[in-house]
Amino acid sequence: MDCRIKSDFSVIEKIHTPADLNQLETPELSALADELRRIIIRRVAENGGHLASNCGSVELTVALHRVFNAPGDRVFFDVGHQSYAHKLLTGRAESFEKLRRYDGISGFPHPEESGFDPAPAGHAGSALPVASGFAAAEPDADGRLIVVIGDGSIGCGVNFEALNHLSHNPGKRRIVLIINDNQMSISRNVGGLSTYLNRVISGTFYNRVRYGVKRGLRRLPKVFSLLRSLVISAKGALLPRGNFFELLGLRYLGPVDGHDLPNLVRVLERIKAFDAPVVLHVVTQKGYGCSYAEDDPTRYHGIAGCDAETGKLPAGSRGFSRALGDALLKLAEDDPRVVAVTPAMIEGTGLSEFSRSYPERCFDVGIAEEHALSFCCGLAAAGKIPVCTFYDTFLQRALDQIYHDGVLAKVPLILAVDRAGVVEDGPTHHGIYNCGFLRSLPGITICAPARCKDVERFLKMAIKENHPVVIRYPRGSSPDVELPELDIPVVPGKAAVIRKSPADRAVIWSIGRELFTALACADILAGAGIAVTVVDARFLKPFDRALALELAMLPHFTIEDHCVVGGLFSALNEALSGVPHGVVRGFGWSDEELTGHGEIPKLRAHAGMTPEQIAGVISGALGETL
Amino acid sequence: MDCRIKSDFSVIEKIHTPADLNQLETPELSALADELRRIIIRRVAENGGHLASNCGSVELTVALHRVFNAPGDRVFFDVGHQSYAHKLLTGRAESFEKLRRYDGISGFPHPEESGFDPAPAGHAGSALPVASGFAAAEPDADGRLIVVIGDGSIGCGVNFEALNHLSHNPGKRRIVLIINDNQMSISRNVGGLSTYLNRVISGTFYNRVRYGVKRGLRRLPKVFSLLRSLVISAKGALLPRGNFFELLGLRYLGPVDGHDLPNLVRVLERIKAFDAPVVLHVVTQKGYGCSYAEDDPTRYHGIAGCDAETGKLPAGSRGFSRALGDALLKLAEDDPRVVAVTPAMIEGTGLSEFSRSYPERCFDVGIAEEHALSFCCGLAAAGKIPVCTFYDTFLQRALDQIYHDGVLAKVPLILAVDRAGVVEDGPTHHGIYNCGFLRSLPGITICAPARCKDVERFLKMAIKENHPVVIRYPRGSSPDVELPELDIPVVPGKAAVIRKSPADRAVIWSIGRELFTALACADILAGAGIAVTVVDARFLKPFDRALALELAMLPHFTIEDHCVVGGLFSALNEALSGVPHGVVRGFGWSDEELTGHGEIPKLRAHAGMTPEQIAGVISGALGETL
Repeated sequence: MDCRIKSDFSVIEKIHTPADLNQLETPELSALADELRRIIIRRVAENGGHLASNCGSVELTVALHRVFNAPGDRVFFDVGHQSYAHKLLTGRAESFEKLRRYDGISGFPHPEESGFDPAPAGHAGSALPVASGFAAAEPDADGRLIVVIGDGSIGCGVNFEALNHLSHNPGKRRIVLIINDNQMSISRNVGGLSTYLNRVISGTFYNRVRYGVKRGLRRLPKVFSLLRSLVISAKGALLPRGNFFELLGLRYLGPVDGHDLPNLVRVLERIKAFDAPVVLHVVTQKGYGCSYAEDDPTRYHGIAGCDAETGKLPAGSRGFSRALGDALLKLAEDDPRVVAVTPAMIEGTGLSEFSRSYPERCFDVGIAEEHALSFCCGLAAAGKIPVCTFYDTFLQRALDQIYHDGVLAKVPLILAVDRAGVVEDGPTHHGIYNCGFLRSLPGITICAPARCKDVERFLKMAIKENHPVVIRYPRGSSPDVELPELDIPVVPGKAAVIRKSPADRAVIWSIGRELFTALACADILAGAGIAVTVVDARFLKPFDRALALELAMLPHFTIEDHCVVGGLFSALNEALSGVPHGVVRGFGWSDEELTGHGEIPKLRAHAGMTPEQIAGVISGALGETL
Repeated sequence: MDCRIKSDFSVIEKIHTPADLNQLETPELSALADELRRIIIRRVAENGGHLASNCGSVELTVALHRVFNAPGDRVFFDVGHQSYAHKLLTGRAESFEKLRRYDGISGFPHPEESGFDPAPAGHAGSALPVASGFAAAEPDADGRLIVVIGDGSIGCGVNFEALNHLSHNPGKRRIVLIINDNQMSISRNVGGLSTYLNRVISGTFYNRVRYGVKRGLRRLPKVFSLLRSLVISAKGALLPRGNFFELLGLRYLGPVDGHDLPNLVRVLERIKAFDAPVVLHVVTQKGYGCSYAEDDPTRYHGIAGCDAETGKLPAGSRGFSRALGDALLKLAEDDPRVVAVTPAMIEGTGLSEFSRSYPERCFDVGIAEEHALSFCCGLAAAGKIPVCTFYDTFLQRALDQIYHDGVLAKVPLILAVDRAGVVEDGPTHHGIYNCGFLRSLPGITICAPARCKDVERFLKMAIKENHPVVIRYPRGSSPDVELPELDIPVVPGKAAVIRKSPADRAVIWSIGRELFTALACADILAGAGIAVTVVDARFLKPFDRALALELAMLPHFTIEDHCVVGGLFSALNEALSGVPHGVVRGFGWSDEELTGHGEIPKLRAHAGMTPEQIAGVISGALGETL
């Protein structure tokens, strides 16, 4: 199937709730899957979003909603980046047009968006633990709790904790765990369990009949579907004994072809009749049905948009991520101790080229944030200089390890924290909450470069420190401007004064790329004859207290792409606390209202964080009007 | 063997480094184990510490140091509460007298204490990830990396992440994973993996020969030791096929009797010769060799001290924990929605009686902090009112889940956070870093009762909230005093003004039990004629900003059993930031220097947190002398 967009959506129009699927004959179900896929491709091409994962799970989603009765039966999509078909089938087909828009629906499940979404999702591994809670709350309830989880997410620690606990759950019989096995997380999967799942697939009759068939599993003759279903009725008969899940006390079925809709429906109908926790192993292909996404599922995992026909991606600016990757390449060349570690974010954090140039010095540990951090601490203690790349939101998973294995051991660990700030994906992915914890840890450095081009100098500074250093930068790029004031050496605890004059009536403090918001404010204010000092704090810890004291008596305004609590605003207030000082006003993301999803300029405007809004507040505070 | 303390320590006197073990004949090794155990029992009886876990691992530790060559071979004790014998064998026999003292050695491993401790330990599951980092750093090095991990800790998420990643580790051949299986974490173990390990034990020849022998495994006739060693040479032959660890790509050996020293030495000698990652499953008995600890290993897991002969424990004050347990019992009686959840801390967090009264409403999920939190979120979403009990230091593991599964879902989850403050165990166990993160989350309430007797009222307040509520309280008890000012209703965002007069020259803000430090300060100051306002903040979030503004122009002093960054001091500074106000000075634990272990009064004095010290600073700031 190619990606041509047809105008024919005759089946989806009949579906207002999942119950409507019961009206469809088998051929219509397949037509529905095709329609869903075309809608998804068109919408993601336009709005951006997750393409490959959503294409791969269309048939599975259709089969689930055909067989089970949502919302009485609850369907949890782990991570949630494969829930588009689910959204389209659960009353959100019309609102799907505004997918990921500020005034539209989210790219992830959320109970406030729909009663068909039992829990928020965005981080890996939460679905089974949360569903387990539902099960234990009402062990005797009828509704099944269906958890769809990727084979990458299966290796995630919290998911294993839930699997391990499941045998003790009084409501375990309600759980149906679907492993959507596409042999990928965002990148190709790693780990013993993943290897094991592959061995299961390749060691079974399932795969022997598949052998020789390139791609397109559903092209298999019907007879094989029938034979495959035998694997299910004769539980485990074709599997090696001692299946991983059965050792943990769960009943295992599969593997089955995740694109063979009629067979999926048959298998799920049988599972529906069970009164025991079941693991169904479904094999899918990431990007299935969209040729370019099939060919390069990593590239088309999450995109900002593309040409729907050809898949051509817009010339992207992956500024900070690439800057990190480039800087790391240079440093690695000079210093054999430099290695890179990431929990399944090679591409997203700019490590692709590094991983090709230094495969033996680049460790992708899979979706395992906690292990990633502790693993780095071991590397560091043994003499390496590990640079661990993270998205800030996922770093929340490893805060304990930063303290316990990093800070306590006083190891020279470098955390390169990408997506530190608000992102379009919304609250599950914002990187705006970690600084409060990090700032309280003794023996840690927290800093942020203002420009992409500064990343390298911050990294060089970090390498000289003998304890954990956190370097934070947002998604995307920065203005590529020359600013001599930024060329001063990067010294822990030293801010950079960007603008200053004796006539200044206030000081704007910024951190990281927000310097450019600060400068834009300053320009607006200057236009109204109001001169202000502009400081790039550079370091949240150690914070430049000396500078704060020097400027103490001015009114202070802070701008940060972080929650207004815990970061720059808090640090400045603490630094000034012991002396008389001017008022301090903070501009950042709310600690009282959740920050949503959508276009960043709209999110900023809602939060009062545009240069114009900030300049307005500052001039008002100074008794002036703009 | 009973617990009589003999004065004969002739073997241990010969051991200055582990290499000295090579001089000993087999009978001397056994005598050494006996001596070590007696020293441990005597010392823990006097100084407090971990008794049952350390008694259970003596023979294993002796065998490890006899066979391997530390520190070239590195021995990691996961959690670290079984490392006393290791400390005694690695040059710390003399300093062992000051175990857990402010001026003595820690109860946990730390590289700064000894070159024989490759990493800090205190939280479960860190040893294998960190050791994996050592392995990857030098894949071709000779030294083995021996990781001793309990069967409870094995189910911990980060440990599984490390296990899962191990097959991809270039240095994996260096790893020797010893599962110290005593069928316990702190409490009896839960989880499918634990059940599986038990099945392995009970399903093998090993256990069939053990059948009928109560306790004392080493009493088995010698022939069985020989036969058991056959299990090892014929890899897996007596095991069910498809061993859990082998499915993950690791070589599994065992189970072996962890108290049969000669056999342990033989088995480890064979393992030493392997060039592959090995899992050795060792079965031990918690409290082994100390009759009272054998009989009640949970009670004697960690103690404040006891009579070495009889095990008689001092009349303990488990004030806040018990208050939580009692309050929960009452609430559960009134409201069937109330349930309790804890990650392996039933006893420590005061849930023992609750778990007996309401076994079906009490969920111990094992050492699985992340799952515990998300599981609660599922319970809450399904209509329950889960009260999740945690030690604050372990809550660091679940911060992401609080946000992702709790805050985003807006579920009525109650977190009862025990040991929130500094504890004798030291930095691995201090609960002083979480408030900075928590305070930045929208839609969360953070509070702390001043007295044990207030816990119930805080809990009742929390039950009425429709979002996550964190109730924090320290280890131990509070003065049981009547204070009418504390009897005002517990209302989110409302502080309690405890003392106030028009003559007040400053305001002391406290949170939780620190109110009594504040009152002691106020008394000292009053004695010098200095009147001060005393406020119990009660809520860190929402913070009583109105009161802060009312008192703004006074000098402010905050007292908290938390890092001075992130909690009360930061909250007050933020609240006052927008208006002219008096200076703010914070008393709390340092964010620049790690807070150590030992007697709490000494730790407080070091940090300048005694009432006398604080009163001195306040009077000085007011230009007075005491």
